[in-house]
Amino acid sequence: MSARAQSAVALGGGHGLYASLTALRHLVDDLVVDDLTAIVTVADNGGSSGRLRGEFGVLPPGDLRMALAALCGEDDWGATWARVLQHRFAGDGEMRGHVVGNLLIVSLWELLGDHVKALDWVGRLLGASGRVLPMALTPLDIAAEVRGLDPTDPAALSTVRGQVQVATTDGVITSVRLEPEPVACPEAVAAIRAADWVVLGPGSWFSSVIPHLVVPELREALVQTDARLVVVLNLAEQAGETHGFGPEDHLAVLAEHAPDLKIHTVLADRSTVGDRSRLEEAAASYGAALVVEDVAMDDGSPRHDAARLAAAYERIIARG
Amino acid sequence: MSARAQSAVALGGGHGLYASLTALRHLVDDLVVDDLTAIVTVADNGGSSGRLRGEFGVLPPGDLRMALAALCGEDDWGATWARVLQHRFAGDGEMRGHVVGNLLIVSLWELLGDHVKALDWVGRLLGASGRVLPMALTPLDIAAEVRGLDPTDPAALSTVRGQVQVATTDGVITSVRLEPEPVACPEAVAAIRAADWVVLGPGSWFSSVIPHLVVPELREALVQTDARLVVVLNLAEQAGETHGFGPEDHLAVLAEHAPDLKIHTVLADRSTVGDRSRLEEAAASYGAALVVEDVAMDDGSPRHDAARLAAAYERIIARG
Repeated sequence: MSARAQSAVALGGGHGLYASLTALRHLVDDLVVDDLTAIVTVADNGGSSGRLRGEFGVLPPGDLRMALAALCGEDDWGATWARVLQHRFAGDGEMRGHVVGNLLIVSLWELLGDHVKALDWVGRLLGASGRVLPMALTPLDIAAEVRGLDPTDPAALSTVRGQVQVATTDGVITSVRLEPEPVACPEAVAAIRAADWVVLGPGSWFSSVIPHLVVPELREALVQTDARLVVVLNLAEQAGETHGFGPEDHLAVLAEHAPDLKIHTVLADRSTVGDRSRLEEAAASYGAALVVEDVAMDDGSPRHDAARLAAAYERIIARG
Repeated sequence: MSARAQSAVALGGGHGLYASLTALRHLVDDLVVDDLTAIVTVADNGGSSGRLRGEFGVLPPGDLRMALAALCGEDDWGATWARVLQHRFAGDGEMRGHVVGNLLIVSLWELLGDHVKALDWVGRLLGASGRVLPMALTPLDIAAEVRGLDPTDPAALSTVRGQVQVATTDGVITSVRLEPEPVACPEAVAAIRAADWVVLGPGSWFSSVIPHLVVPELREALVQTDARLVVVLNLAEQAGETHGFGPEDHLAVLAEHAPDLKIHTVLADRSTVGDRSRLEEAAASYGAALVVEDVAMDDGSPRHDAARLAAAYERIIARG
């Protein structure tokens, strides 16, 4: 590719975003991308993040910390600090389950009083190949409308609150919103508006991916930006949130939450595509080209392989 | 001074060592010292350190973390990470009282399985002007023989165990030992043997300073080294451990714990010296010259002023 290096923004949370960022970091190394920003959900209420959020009223740091670790350099320095950042205490005392990077991020928030500046400091420590931003500046809760939880009325909608609760619901999620009304991180809005490429997904669809579309300023930026939007479909349905969802259903719920969204490319793993022309049609109905590649790991687990995903991203960007 | 730069080792723990290292860091900046090593007690059983030691069976990290913070650079990077390292969580939850730097050090110990290597990593993070070593490689407890705790027999000796308990005893400490039998950190022994100067004190005399003299390999190294030993006397007696102790008593208990120790210089603040010739004689009986300087802070608190202490060290080294 002879074109200039591109700027890219990846939206998501958790392990899906970690996979996408690991792939995009390879593109930074390859000089295909020269400006990489992660925008991360801040609605987690489980584990170490949930405990810190409850104790200090701060943003849940876990997904931000994972995103930073994904962007760390592969040299001795970056690799060691990334391992430290991700280290989870074992034992059976009060520290059990806490992750050191979460504590470090919360400390920097307390000391510097500035979410973005503090994350930039951790990024500098790691020698991170990009910037990690929270999608919003206050801790949020996901509230999902769920069908099928009321045994007396299977069609009735119930509200399920909390990322953990939403991700593991027994019902069928029809929509999600955020509480309280989210205020987007201004640097995240600016990054989306300035980007050449925006990558949405993979990840827990209702609890990590769609939340970005229900932050009004982020949705507006995603609709208005000139950036080309790549939607990366998951490798498997998830028990709980997307039980019974096919690839087309994943696209349909995105559109329901952001009807004006223009998608440039839908990237799907070959193993997930049953009726290719049907998925192609679904993608086309949102303005998108379908790209089918082998991006899964060889071990049969529903995880993206970083090198394959990087190669797929590189081809998509090269095609432009 | 036209002589070559000198190597210096500072022994102690807690706030006393922090003050001494802050002063010695100035000498590194001034190119008077080119090789600075701190050797730190590992017998703390209180606070965040005590909790981590209890939960994970590791060395108490607190005094090591403070020593690292004292050696941090004054640039934006060093100053910010030192603040983070020293940050203590408030609130009223499970994290209350924990210090982030302690958690970071414990994580690195768990991940790298090597005390010295882990502390060197934190030193690199801070851009520390020297190396911080534990005095021993296993957590220790101070056991003190204390007179005056038995109301029926004021002359009877009782054993008090634990740094916190020793530091706050109501009785008169006659001697301290370490349990279990300590194994010195080999790098600490080597640093003492190779040093031009060794600085002992200031600090909690029985719980931070003398413990170094009761680690057999450290005491042997201190007795045999060609390094010149500077003993820095405290600015005040401490309620608990050194109640009623004058400057000469501080020297006497050092000699009782390490009879063969040769002292080169005894540094005392002018305000603490009542009968100068008496203290001079006491110093001379251990082979030492007495240096009396104004090294206390102006605010009347019993703390050393880093710049004044640095100037005093520089003059002592220049005299050689």
